[in-house]
Amino acid sequence: MIAAFDNPLLSGLLGDEKMATLLGVEAELATMLQFEKALADAEGALGIVPAAAASAIGRVLDNFRPEIQALRDATERDGVMVPELVRQIRHAVGEPHSEHVHFGATSQDVIDTAMILRIRTCIDLLEERLSALVVAFADLGHRFGDRPLMARTRMQAAIPISVADRVTSWREPLARHHERLQSMRGSVLVVQFGGAVGTLEKFANKGAAIRAALARRLSLGDAPQWHSQRDRIAELANWLSLVTGGLGKFGQDIALMAQAGDELQRAGGGSSSAMAHKRNPIDAEMLVTLARYNAVQLSGMHHALIHEQERSGAAWTLEWLILPQMLMAAGASTCVADRLVRTIAAIGGKVD
Amino acid sequence: MIAAFDNPLLSGLLGDEKMATLLGVEAELATMLQFEKALADAEGALGIVPAAAASAIGRVLDNFRPEIQALRDATERDGVMVPELVRQIRHAVGEPHSEHVHFGATSQDVIDTAMILRIRTCIDLLEERLSALVVAFADLGHRFGDRPLMARTRMQAAIPISVADRVTSWREPLARHHERLQSMRGSVLVVQFGGAVGTLEKFANKGAAIRAALARRLSLGDAPQWHSQRDRIAELANWLSLVTGGLGKFGQDIALMAQAGDELQRAGGGSSSAMAHKRNPIDAEMLVTLARYNAVQLSGMHHALIHEQERSGAAWTLEWLILPQMLMAAGASTCVADRLVRTIAAIGGKVD
Amino acid sequence: MIAAFDNPLLSGLLGDEKMATLLGVEAELATMLQFEKALADAEGALGIVPAAAASAIGRVLDNFRPEIQALRDATERDGVMVPELVRQIRHAVGEPHSEHVHFGATSQDVIDTAMILRIRTCIDLLEERLSALVVAFADLGHRFGDRPLMARTRMQAAIPISVADRVTSWREPLARHHERLQSMRGSVLVVQFGGAVGTLEKFANKGAAIRAALARRLSLGDAPQWHSQRDRIAELANWLSLVTGGLGKFGQDIALMAQAGDELQRAGGGSSSAMAHKRNPIDAEMLVTLARYNAVQLSGMHHALIHEQERSGAAWTLEWLILPQMLMAAGASTCVADRLVRTIAAIGGKVD
Amino acid sequence: MIAAFDNPLLSGLLGDEKMATLLGVEAELATMLQFEKALADAEGALGIVPAAAASAIGRVLDNFRPEIQALRDATERDGVMVPELVRQIRHAVGEPHSEHVHFGATSQDVIDTAMILRIRTCIDLLEERLSALVVAFADLGHRFGDRPLMARTRMQAAIPISVADRVTSWREPLARHHERLQSMRGSVLVVQFGGAVGTLEKFANKGAAIRAALARRLSLGDAPQWHSQRDRIAELANWLSLVTGGLGKFGQDIALMAQAGDELQRAGGGSSSAMAHKRNPIDAEMLVTLARYNAVQLSGMHHALIHEQERSGAAWTLEWLILPQMLMAAGASTCVADRLVRTIAAIGGKVD
Repeated sequence: MIAAFDNPLLSGLLGDEKMATLLGVEAELATMLQFEKALADAEGALGIVPAAAASAIGRVLDNFRPEIQALRDATERDGVMVPELVRQIRHAVGEPHSEHVHFGATSQDVIDTAMILRIRTCIDLLEERLSALVVAFADLGHRFGDRPLMARTRMQAAIPISVADRVTSWREPLARHHERLQSMRGSVLVVQFGGAVGTLEKFANKGAAIRAALARRLSLGDAPQWHSQRDRIAELANWLSLVTGGLGKFGQDIALMAQAGDELQRAGGGSSSAMAHKRNPIDAEMLVTLARYNAVQLSGMHHALIHEQERSGAAWTLEWLILPQMLMAAGASTCVADRLVRTIAAIGGKVD
Repeated sequence: MIAAFDNPLLSGLLGDEKMATLLGVEAELATMLQFEKALADAEGALGIVPAAAASAIGRVLDNFRPEIQALRDATERDGVMVPELVRQIRHAVGEPHSEHVHFGATSQDVIDTAMILRIRTCIDLLEERLSALVVAFADLGHRFGDRPLMARTRMQAAIPISVADRVTSWREPLARHHERLQSMRGSVLVVQFGGAVGTLEKFANKGAAIRAALARRLSLGDAPQWHSQRDRIAELANWLSLVTGGLGKFGQDIALMAQAGDELQRAGGGSSSAMAHKRNPIDAEMLVTLARYNAVQLSGMHHALIHEQERSGAAWTLEWLILPQMLMAAGASTCVADRLVRTIAAIGGKVD
Repeated sequence: MIAAFDNPLLSGLLGDEKMATLLGVEAELATMLQFEKALADAEGALGIVPAAAASAIGRVLDNFRPEIQALRDATERDGVMVPELVRQIRHAVGEPHSEHVHFGATSQDVIDTAMILRIRTCIDLLEERLSALVVAFADLGHRFGDRPLMARTRMQAAIPISVADRVTSWREPLARHHERLQSMRGSVLVVQFGGAVGTLEKFANKGAAIRAALARRLSLGDAPQWHSQRDRIAELANWLSLVTGGLGKFGQDIALMAQAGDELQRAGGGSSSAMAHKRNPIDAEMLVTLARYNAVQLSGMHHALIHEQERSGAAWTLEWLILPQMLMAAGASTCVADRLVRTIAAIGGKVD
Repeated sequence: MIAAFDNPLLSGLLGDEKMATLLGVEAELATMLQFEKALADAEGALGIVPAAAASAIGRVLDNFRPEIQALRDATERDGVMVPELVRQIRHAVGEPHSEHVHFGATSQDVIDTAMILRIRTCIDLLEERLSALVVAFADLGHRFGDRPLMARTRMQAAIPISVADRVTSWREPLARHHERLQSMRGSVLVVQFGGAVGTLEKFANKGAAIRAALARRLSLGDAPQWHSQRDRIAELANWLSLVTGGLGKFGQDIALMAQAGDELQRAGGGSSSAMAHKRNPIDAEMLVTLARYNAVQLSGMHHALIHEQERSGAAWTLEWLILPQMLMAAGASTCVADRLVRTIAAIGGKVD
């Protein structure tokens, strides 16, 4: 509960409950079990494991609850929770099917694919919110677009524009992010399945077929394993920071308009412990904060591209430290922007 | 529970329970109440508030438990929890003393000073661990220092050195970080007290005296308010990343030695879900991960130096998102290094 | 000549002469003049300026050589060189046509469009090199792909793979970057034209037609002005860092293989001033350096998304400090990778 | 000439001629030759090389001009210029003394020590400018300090302060940076001398004495080699970013005051190619740009702490790409701040 996004005191300000649920431990475990079930099912269908084993594994996984503390302890030792998770599942499945659990897979297959499954829900949520924000900005444009507003370039009053012109600079990047998301889905939402060192060596010439069957069961794209090729993840991270950056520009503009005073009427605003007359543009500031936060984090995701040999624990774990927080920041930013846009009672109408 | 440091699954690997306690919500609230109590006491002693009010406030605060949900909701609105916290304390103190709670202070005074109080406990912990690591490295040097080891420069075998030479490159930076900490204490461990806009305007010419009395009660250094001057905090962040960076070099070296194979005997190591023969140098990798993590985060703390006007919500909140995580990373890194150094059964003894 | 990419001593190591030419002052001025000529021509064709003025301006620009020192001095004052450049062009055009130079345009139109024109040549160069590298990696795969190689996961020997498997992890990201480039061209290679505050206010209802005509003459896409919407540029920066990151993984692997010693035969390698026997894998290290460099820089390009109001001098100039260096790093990385791949005499053939 | 700091068009805006000279190729070569001369002299005095050889080397170096093109070509091959530089010096010294040139030293000794010698001149320059800025801010305080100014917190008008209060927030961090510099000198300004792998193995038990004698001749501190311990350099980088960050806060405040309009009278300001009435606060914006630039770069310097084994070409070269640019940014920032403070004709005098 140290992280601001999770902190019980700050999560009202900077949190995003829906995103937090999509990224929480429950979702993490559920997506891992989903992988193991789909794997057993695919392997059963292709005759890699007995059909009875696949059914038995599936039945067990439908109601399986891992022992969290044991997972935690094993992760300290192994760097990943999968060896212990597989041990627990095998124990639950029991003989004679236990050996067919996780057959031919490696920890990274489970963790990366499960992460991709969670990412899918996260970007679905972000897509929905971006659409809503595009509509909200369009609505702002309809309501106040014809009013005059003093353009400001290089921090100086320039010549008048219309409110529509400025609102457009908030809306259009979001619309482009929405488009980018469509083309990114194909690149990011793919299965990870390579086995110990990426060669699916347990499957002889059936590896590609198993992978395709697994992907189909998870409704993910099929692609050769990308254990050490992290460009898909870096691309997602870039998109998240584009989203927060575009909303950061909106926040910065609103904060400056709130300071200028007569360009913006706001409903609400934060109170001060020392100055009762103030109504602080908290949400606008938070959008700037979240944009800078993700701009910082993105760098780490690109360092993780330098993923040595067949699997780098150092680079991979760096993603775990950063990516969920970037998703949270993007989620929080879309929530805050939605709150903020609703507090705009009027824009423009007067030029100095 | 999204952040890796807090995550119940990953916190064995990347967590630090002691540091987590020092930075948790309980500690956050306790240090804030400590501020309010010391303030009332200082103001009572200097006749700014009635002695009876100071006593009453102190008594209430000794057993005060804030309502967390109300703090959370108010923080969403106000951007800081202090207005609501003060409201709750005033309510608990009741008439006729309630108006003397938080007298002359602003949210930033409470939050920054409370953060400094927590930072003190964190750097005390880190100092203790750095000392222990310096000793542990010295011990490694004593046990194996005379053995030969092939020096490697630019990723190539060079000429032999002794194990002591390489161990020195791990120990000496830690010793210097320990020294830097001493000179940093004076700069970082200072009270924050300026009132609404930094001028202590409620105290006429008694402001400096109140501030000094407050600092004394909290055993912090006295200094003029630094609401918008964040170099102290950036300096601390730099030190945290120096610590993780130095330990990252140690981790990187151990990982390379573990790969080379015959330079290092290790007890323990992580197991693999796919390859039973492997013993992965998980802790060594984690030190690299944590070093890169803090190297990334530090950038954000320096962006927060651009703190506009008398108080920037955007820059200040960016610190909240980043600094606790940097402290956790430094804590985790010292824990992991301690674990790792204990697993070194032998170094060197053979050159190719 | 402070920057490593330009430094006469380091540019052999880290430079890229072709890229340097594409980004140099000559190219900068040439693309700006190209903008002004295309603008005059478009405005002449649409009757915004007299046809005679457009012809006269075009003729003058064909042979125009700006006075560099005056541009430099004016840039110190104005923050951009355009006001002075326009003054010089107007002076050269003389009466009666001088007032028609730069009509309706603003500095940002010239600078951004000229930058896009240079970016086009830079990404053409990078595209060509990526194609060549994809071929070179395919060729490596053909020559040595069947040989065994010990896979290494988490810095430990795992089980054998083939050389082809590892070479694939170098080639496939490059192939994807090549594909990404195609979809990025439409987004990045667009004209910038908005006039003083983005509204093309000098053209009444002809603004969009002029912009389209201008874009056509420059063979750029047409799009509404994006003065304060910098996602196109951040997207490009991300792509540059994806390229260097992918090659950084290749460099890291080669450096590790060179250390392991028996997995790689190299022709060449750097000599040491102190140890004559060494052949250092300099190029491999440089790929890692350049990847980390761009991973760092990318953060700055995303901070520049927070572009306040209609034009932010602070955010815009930050792009000028960073983007050319990122392009140089990407150029250098592709050059170094080409050198490095040629020095690989053999890979694999033996597993421990 | 791609980098903005060197670019003939931008260097008026963002350059620093003095700093550029201190960091240029001439200075780089001169400090390297200074190292080689001091080394020969120290080795002569301690009987490591013949006194006649030391004298001969010294005489040759006094007038030695390296062949730049050959250095450049060799650096491409060797990753460092030193092997070729030593070859050239040996050739110039001729027989029988040539073998005594560079005796017992390695490339990193020369390059790091020469860099430290240049850093010394750079921080001397920055120190002088910080002192001047502290005085300039004090002077602003004397002239306008008593005037009222509306405090602004969280982008909102709060209550009045005096101009002195805000000027203090610009001056005090600089004064602290000045103090920090004093304690940093001892840590940063030390000789680098370790030989091939850091053990001074060519000198038996005289290594420390030679190193001390070398340090004395260069007026640097003596310290054991720190080839792979880069905390000194990261500490310097942090200080540089503290300097630019503090001035970035000043710039941000001035830009906001210039926008508000009635709090600041400025002499000068940039002109616009499209709007003749504007006077843009270019210098204020540049301070923000340079602060963000260094905040970004600092991250890279901390990644370079992860310096594997006895010498990491990858991490070391990353410093070369970044540190000179950070020094230039700090230099430029102090120049720009000096220009900006002179344009302040008046501050404050009116509150809304």
